[in-house]
Amino acid sequence: MLQSNIPDSPYPRVVIVGAGFAGINLVKTLHNKPFQVVLLDRNNFHTFQPLLYQVATAGLEPSSIAFPIRGIFRRKNKFIYRLAEVEDVSPDTHTLNTSIGPIRYDYLVIATGSVSNFFGNKNFETYGSGMKSLYEAVGIRNYGLKNIEQALLLKDRAAQEKALTIVIAGGGPTGVELAGALAEFRKTIFPQDYPELSADLMHIYLIEGAPRLLANMSEQASAQTHKFLAEMGVKIYLQTLVKDYDGEVVYLGNGEQIPTQSFIWSAGVKGNALPGLREEQIKGGRIEVDTFNLVKGCSNVYAIGDVALMTDNDHPKGYPMLAQVAIQQGKNLGANLVRRQNKEPLRPFSYRDKGTMATIGRNKAVTDIGKLHLHGFIAWVMWGVVHLMFLMGFRNKLVVFINWMYSYFTYDKGTRILLKRHI
Amino acid sequence: MLQSNIPDSPYPRVVIVGAGFAGINLVKTLHNKPFQVVLLDRNNFHTFQPLLYQVATAGLEPSSIAFPIRGIFRRKNKFIYRLAEVEDVSPDTHTLNTSIGPIRYDYLVIATGSVSNFFGNKNFETYGSGMKSLYEAVGIRNYGLKNIEQALLLKDRAAQEKALTIVIAGGGPTGVELAGALAEFRKTIFPQDYPELSADLMHIYLIEGAPRLLANMSEQASAQTHKFLAEMGVKIYLQTLVKDYDGEVVYLGNGEQIPTQSFIWSAGVKGNALPGLREEQIKGGRIEVDTFNLVKGCSNVYAIGDVALMTDNDHPKGYPMLAQVAIQQGKNLGANLVRRQNKEPLRPFSYRDKGTMATIGRNKAVTDIGKLHLHGFIAWVMWGVVHLMFLMGFRNKLVVFINWMYSYFTYDKGTRILLKRHI
Repeated sequence: MLQSNIPDSPYPRVVIVGAGFAGINLVKTLHNKPFQVVLLDRNNFHTFQPLLYQVATAGLEPSSIAFPIRGIFRRKNKFIYRLAEVEDVSPDTHTLNTSIGPIRYDYLVIATGSVSNFFGNKNFETYGSGMKSLYEAVGIRNYGLKNIEQALLLKDRAAQEKALTIVIAGGGPTGVELAGALAEFRKTIFPQDYPELSADLMHIYLIEGAPRLLANMSEQASAQTHKFLAEMGVKIYLQTLVKDYDGEVVYLGNGEQIPTQSFIWSAGVKGNALPGLREEQIKGGRIEVDTFNLVKGCSNVYAIGDVALMTDNDHPKGYPMLAQVAIQQGKNLGANLVRRQNKEPLRPFSYRDKGTMATIGRNKAVTDIGKLHLHGFIAWVMWGVVHLMFLMGFRNKLVVFINWMYSYFTYDKGTRILLKRHI
Repeated sequence: MLQSNIPDSPYPRVVIVGAGFAGINLVKTLHNKPFQVVLLDRNNFHTFQPLLYQVATAGLEPSSIAFPIRGIFRRKNKFIYRLAEVEDVSPDTHTLNTSIGPIRYDYLVIATGSVSNFFGNKNFETYGSGMKSLYEAVGIRNYGLKNIEQALLLKDRAAQEKALTIVIAGGGPTGVELAGALAEFRKTIFPQDYPELSADLMHIYLIEGAPRLLANMSEQASAQTHKFLAEMGVKIYLQTLVKDYDGEVVYLGNGEQIPTQSFIWSAGVKGNALPGLREEQIKGGRIEVDTFNLVKGCSNVYAIGDVALMTDNDHPKGYPMLAQVAIQQGKNLGANLVRRQNKEPLRPFSYRDKGTMATIGRNKAVTDIGKLHLHGFIAWVMWGVVHLMFLMGFRNKLVVFINWMYSYFTYDKGTRILLKRHI
């Protein structure tokens, strides 16, 4: 019989569900404060999601962007981690039901992030892949490498093109960065590794419903990104919807059909709310919170990061689902929990926009910092520095830096091993 | 319909099965020679087997010791690689039957290596794990990390010990290096990552049937290894057989029973001969060859490396299954194939023993070079230098070196992520 085995403590117990940017930063803020901190996650590692696309395109190893949770918080007092899946929450009894039994809380913090939103189309999920987890990224890598090996065994040009073509739905940061990395793979790795195949057989489609790519960034960044990707040979469709995918053909809203074995969905995410909350507390999977991240109608349940829906005059639809928002909400909530215990006045969340950036390829990136819009080499270096800064752990920073330098100077990628033989 | 799609060539076709040390070195030797070289492997990468135990103990990432085959031989003329499983060989028709269809050969080279020999005990295979492939090593890592998380959820001390205890059958290099790495994990990582558990609950058993560990090395090396491991708290049983394992308890020949969830088999390997050869050509899974590695009774089929059984006065039971033998046989056969085409006299294989070594832990290794026996720090540095030298690819050497340095100075390991949630 498995039990959570969480020891009793004289301190109030804060249970945090999810070890993403929000959860991790909350734990850090509560270090050495008078709380018993219990962190639950169904993985034993924190994933650095902004670099998932490099794992999917064989540029980085999974462990370079994953950091073991116990490694982050080693030697921390009053900190407890459990590998567990949360089943539901029972706010009335202050209890969380999990795969390792019920867990009582004094404060509950839901930091469960977001999941792919397929808008009810089961086919996208069944025949395609999302790009939200390390599992999906490794799966895309293995599947892609397998498809190229398979294309070598086909005689018919149309069949080869179908095996090599990749269709990405969604022109947000994930779709853009993935399309760029694939175009670089096609240009540098493909001709050297597969001299028997023509790189012209591999088509990369990026399908976006809005009138421009990177709709959350500036017009300048969108235009530059579009130019970069088009130059790299990515076929970009704007104001175009993906209607369906049956595992063989992608059907577009404009009537066009694209035969392909590879369909990646990055056209929408939704909040990953926990079961057990009341229906009126949840909108689009996100949990409605006040400016202190307290869940509406609850006294001791908080939500932070992507899963939290906090609205104000500037953000009538809620804050964007960004790492920076999650990090800042985690830190603010940590400080507020201490204030609440001390019966001091709380401080509402106030977001400090540090800018947004996306990388398209070698020496090609776009950055918005307030009114400043940069692109090209300087933006690309900034992107690299910022991502290394936020990557957890010295070893990871060093290994990622070396992989980047190695790829930059050799035009090679070291990690294209096909780990699952039979998919 | 998948076809091998191997183009016609004016040159004689050498088909090589297996991209281990033997196969890879043969391909290299045949570069720019008048042959069409076709390499088949069921993985798209070469595995550096000597460091598998570091993957199993979370010291290195899989891709650090795996090198994509297409990366090794990029830009090589007349070289063709196919991802394929070989079903059998038909020597009479000079044809190999594979998962991608039949492949004709002028010369066939079998370099399929060795597999775990469970000596007919299905239980060892079903409930335990071998340590011969990257899959098994990653599986051991994930399973071990999962067991520790599970031990936290148990109340009963005996149940916790059973979850944490690891029994290794076989005191050869694999068993010794694995036991040493696990003992270091228990000493350095365990207390920091799992302060709720006592490291005393984790027992490491090393069970060997012979009167000493590392029976293929010198008496001095065996004695020193025994001393190192005993000091590190490994429970060593000599002249003891493992009779059975039912998934719950390991039954030893001396009547002792060890309750454990983790049983690793490194007590025997056998040749991985291809089906289709005649029974009298095979002994213990190895294929009998003459001193030119030609399979007895065949005119154009060769076997090299672990799978080849070459006997002489000094080696009445065949050469040991070592990387050095495989490398040297691959190179010698390559040169002989050229000579055979040129109708020049062939040179028989002659083995140059460059010494053997094993590492037990931090600053602890043993080395035999002829009559010279070294141990301790100097042997450990030599071990590291030699392994880095033989590891394929600059990126891999650099990443492994950094991981080693990082672990050495921080007593930390970076890659203990549990990638499969549900095993």
